[in-house]
Amino acid sequence: MAPKREISIKDVKVDDSFWNGRIGNAVEKAVPYQWRVLNDQEPGAVPSHAVMNFKICAGLAEGEFGGFRFQDSDLAKWIEAAAYSLLYKDSPEIRAALEEAVSVIEKAQQPDGYLDTYFILEKPEERWRDIAHGHELYCAGHMLEAAVALFQVTGSSRLLTVMEKTVNLIRQVFGEGEGQISSCPGHEEIELALMKAYRATGQEAYKELALYFIENRGAKPGFLEEPGFQNASKNRWFQASYHQAHARIREQETAEGHAVRAMYFFTGAADAALETGDPTLKAALEKLWENVTRRRMYVTGGVGSQGEGECFTIDYDLPNDTCYTETCAAIGLAMWALRMLRLEPKEEYAAIMERALYNNVLSGISQDGEHYFYVNPLLVKPEVARFRRDHQDVEPDRVKWFGCACCPPNITRTLCGLGGYIYTRKGDAIYQHLYIGNTGEFETEKGKARLRCVSSMPWEGKAEIAYSGPAGVEVYLRVPGYGENFRITKAGAPVSFTLSQGYARLCPQDGDAYTLSFDMKAQYLQANPQVLEDCGKACVQRGPLVYCAEEADNGPLLNSFTADLSQPPVLETSPLFGGVTVVKAAGSQIDWEKWPANALYAPAPAPTRPASLTLVPYFLWNNRGAGEMLVWMNAR
Amino acid sequence: MAPKREISIKDVKVDDSFWNGRIGNAVEKAVPYQWRVLNDQEPGAVPSHAVMNFKICAGLAEGEFGGFRFQDSDLAKWIEAAAYSLLYKDSPEIRAALEEAVSVIEKAQQPDGYLDTYFILEKPEERWRDIAHGHELYCAGHMLEAAVALFQVTGSSRLLTVMEKTVNLIRQVFGEGEGQISSCPGHEEIELALMKAYRATGQEAYKELALYFIENRGAKPGFLEEPGFQNASKNRWFQASYHQAHARIREQETAEGHAVRAMYFFTGAADAALETGDPTLKAALEKLWENVTRRRMYVTGGVGSQGEGECFTIDYDLPNDTCYTETCAAIGLAMWALRMLRLEPKEEYAAIMERALYNNVLSGISQDGEHYFYVNPLLVKPEVARFRRDHQDVEPDRVKWFGCACCPPNITRTLCGLGGYIYTRKGDAIYQHLYIGNTGEFETEKGKARLRCVSSMPWEGKAEIAYSGPAGVEVYLRVPGYGENFRITKAGAPVSFTLSQGYARLCPQDGDAYTLSFDMKAQYLQANPQVLEDCGKACVQRGPLVYCAEEADNGPLLNSFTADLSQPPVLETSPLFGGVTVVKAAGSQIDWEKWPANALYAPAPAPTRPASLTLVPYFLWNNRGAGEMLVWMNAR
Repeated sequence: MAPKREISIKDVKVDDSFWNGRIGNAVEKAVPYQWRVLNDQEPGAVPSHAVMNFKICAGLAEGEFGGFRFQDSDLAKWIEAAAYSLLYKDSPEIRAALEEAVSVIEKAQQPDGYLDTYFILEKPEERWRDIAHGHELYCAGHMLEAAVALFQVTGSSRLLTVMEKTVNLIRQVFGEGEGQISSCPGHEEIELALMKAYRATGQEAYKELALYFIENRGAKPGFLEEPGFQNASKNRWFQASYHQAHARIREQETAEGHAVRAMYFFTGAADAALETGDPTLKAALEKLWENVTRRRMYVTGGVGSQGEGECFTIDYDLPNDTCYTETCAAIGLAMWALRMLRLEPKEEYAAIMERALYNNVLSGISQDGEHYFYVNPLLVKPEVARFRRDHQDVEPDRVKWFGCACCPPNITRTLCGLGGYIYTRKGDAIYQHLYIGNTGEFETEKGKARLRCVSSMPWEGKAEIAYSGPAGVEVYLRVPGYGENFRITKAGAPVSFTLSQGYARLCPQDGDAYTLSFDMKAQYLQANPQVLEDCGKACVQRGPLVYCAEEADNGPLLNSFTADLSQPPVLETSPLFGGVTVVKAAGSQIDWEKWPANALYAPAPAPTRPASLTLVPYFLWNNRGAGEMLVWMNAR
Repeated sequence: MAPKREISIKDVKVDDSFWNGRIGNAVEKAVPYQWRVLNDQEPGAVPSHAVMNFKICAGLAEGEFGGFRFQDSDLAKWIEAAAYSLLYKDSPEIRAALEEAVSVIEKAQQPDGYLDTYFILEKPEERWRDIAHGHELYCAGHMLEAAVALFQVTGSSRLLTVMEKTVNLIRQVFGEGEGQISSCPGHEEIELALMKAYRATGQEAYKELALYFIENRGAKPGFLEEPGFQNASKNRWFQASYHQAHARIREQETAEGHAVRAMYFFTGAADAALETGDPTLKAALEKLWENVTRRRMYVTGGVGSQGEGECFTIDYDLPNDTCYTETCAAIGLAMWALRMLRLEPKEEYAAIMERALYNNVLSGISQDGEHYFYVNPLLVKPEVARFRRDHQDVEPDRVKWFGCACCPPNITRTLCGLGGYIYTRKGDAIYQHLYIGNTGEFETEKGKARLRCVSSMPWEGKAEIAYSGPAGVEVYLRVPGYGENFRITKAGAPVSFTLSQGYARLCPQDGDAYTLSFDMKAQYLQANPQVLEDCGKACVQRGPLVYCAEEADNGPLLNSFTADLSQPPVLETSPLFGGVTVVKAAGSQIDWEKWPANALYAPAPAPTRPASLTLVPYFLWNNRGAGEMLVWMNAR
């Protein structure tokens, strides 16, 4: 079976008033900045060692391995991001840096194709021994994604050639044959990378290896029997379910274990379901999707409730202050959602992808593009976050870099690769999921089709969409669940359309220009009463944006405010952050000045006074110094 | 200065409809049960090793030390409890067990007076080396308390003689002289024990050593420089403030570190302030008292917000689900409050002592008297408590014993010694702080005075108090802050009285019989708005009892209920637990059946329906199996 036609990263170029600045920051600042960090040339950032490790392997430098055993993946994610960045700015410096990186990687690769600087430098005799925690396959996966990105954007197959060798070695080492290791990666990633490589090159070997790893996960004998795992298994958070290896995927009822691993696994598995057409795999993913998004996901699109094990916990367990909600996990959720959309375009998948991207992903990076959150809480009191043991993962301020720096390059590659999230195709039907301004070009059976979108999202429910190309191409435009009074006009006249799973079906002619619009009210949301932490509370969402209250706008003791749900939240245009829509929530607040002097507890009702909170989009929080923040307000 | 006249444990015998059953359980069940546990003869309980360790030291058995390094203190607390139990039941078996215990201890003591089975058996060459964590002085303190209890109740000074030797050794080892160790105990306890011994025997040496340890805490060079401490200090939770050694007591502004240590320290320091009359020490304790009770105390009288380090955290940081609120810490708070009452009889101190005893202390033991909580949370969802890392200290069910078993014998000695908490004296003025039925006999300057109290507390604000004895004795009866319409009658006629710091002053004649009564409404309390976790919530208190909602009465999803503060909570007499007053809280609850099927988040307002919760006294929670429980309800 030939790979399903995919939209290449080159086909869609974002040009959008909301995203241009953020992508620009990523392209202009983060990509060069991260290259300096990866080369240990950025003062104030934790040393990365990532490039140096490859240089030492390549014989270009001397020294010892530095960083985590998965340090290689930071460079790989940067290469992917830098490759995408060339679509927006063809920088000679970045091209040169990419050349340099690839050259070093080529030289670092071992004659047999092996490429993992940690094991080459630190434990050469322990290759492929600690499958559970060694991260060799994880790093290979990221480097393979980087290779595909470079190949797609620049046409250069140098890194892909390197990774072909590595993949060939992996195919020799892993499998069910005599002398092979029957296992699967401790940290999933290579599955989705192999599927990307398969779709980019058409080489079946990539797909076969991906399917082997996906189907072998949870089988016995697996990597639980490997050395290295035995030590870790004493801790309940690092047992089989940490790696989603507690059952084969079709027997998994709930998303368990390390959230990023789970998301990457499900992403790769959804790719596999698309390419194999296996309905049982699709059904398994639908079940897991439902579990994650209906039981285990924060309203910000964050997943992973607990820092210990960076893991999912149990249904409806969504603490707001001690949550983990790693930036990478939300990126993983968006990646998985995109694959679910490829499998079956349903508005629900697009809505979750958008929720993750506009909230938990975007909160991972500061407005200046140079500071990062690993953990994205929904409730922060800085002095508690700084003091308490169970808040040890929560930073009240974004930082410049992390010792474990998975998130910064991950968010950069996501921003530079954002064009890849806007559309999917099914044959000659093009689905637009996100109203992000862009130009997309699609090679259809009927010829080249072009869509140009100019959008006012997320501030206003309005987009202009122009089609040029052959007749017979179907264009499906998402009707967002939050959009009221959705309408499409052409030259001012209403366009009728049929609805299909949340998408408006159009059959445009060359030159057709549509205006779609919908109303976006700021709305109070409440959580399922099973979510203990959110009971008695409400949050505000408008369109894809979840809002939060910050001390910078409202002073301290945010939780002493109670929103009055009978008064709808009011929109205001604010000059903050260069111009955003803020929300005023009306209600009452405990009147501290009338609180009995020095009392810890006092007879109810506490004195209150009318009050309102100014809410800003969650993704913007902590751009004005550390302070209290909350998403879920007390509500009545 | 001679010791201030204290009320001996023998002088007050509780006879009270509320407490008799609980004391009876302690006397009839817990004391014999714990003796079996301490002798490793109780199936299903974690082996204690406590008696065996002494037997091995005594040459009466062979084997290795078992348990924690402070295991000796479990036996010591049991001896104290068992001694007190003889006041209620003069059991030959318990007398024999006490004889046996003392005989073994006598034989276990080393010729120089040293008595700590861990170091004798495990690290004989490391005596007095790990002052910070060795617990030698802690164990000696508990054994000295036990010795005083035995002496006071039975008149036997055998154990006191043993401990005199130990104390003499400690006086040689610690001090500012040549070759002495200038330090203070890692875990406070011996200070208050030495003050008890001083008051029981009048021997100045006890007091001097106590004062030395109290005043030397926080001084340099201190035990921070000791070996053993260096290792632990890498963890921020185990630095100097863990031991209240970050500053001298007069410079301490806030209660820091391990909560039990802090409570025991402040207890001993308050004893010292009473005996020395030092106003600066009293002022320091008043400041710390205010910090604890106005900033760092749960409404249940629990202290210690965090399991890591079993410690205080920061002002107003009072999470309800991950709190530590160790039973022993609440006992310590009651002990400290009793000493503050001796220093200065103020209703506030009595109210906190009562709050701790009737809530966080009593919740530490089951109705059957044989199951214990170490941690006493205010919000429990069993599946979360079982799963989540940050809930690892929270048991959703009481257990039969603990590997670290400080709490069970501590609560037993508290119940058997409850008579000691009812009164304090200042000369010939007798203050009654708790309306617990009892007979108290007091040797006053004017002769023997006797008070007999029959009380309906905590269910009704009513007590009959009969006085017999000489004229000229003043009796001060507490006017509880929660008691409305407080009145005293004699033979049906109102008695007028003067109020002094929350106490009604009476000057009874022989044979006077008073009836005091006050109204106790069930009342909604709210917390200071600085307490993030309690904002938007209320709890119910009636008299000294804090109430909670349990799944057993109300079904699950307790947090989906919102109390209507405009409707006062209603009292009901319930046959539950042999007859208690329960409270009905009216309000509304999210109507789960109308909640959008399978939605995690949905537009507000969520459908609600009128509802009420049945609340039971907090101390009774978890006597009907594991289930949800909460103290703080959403409120509007």
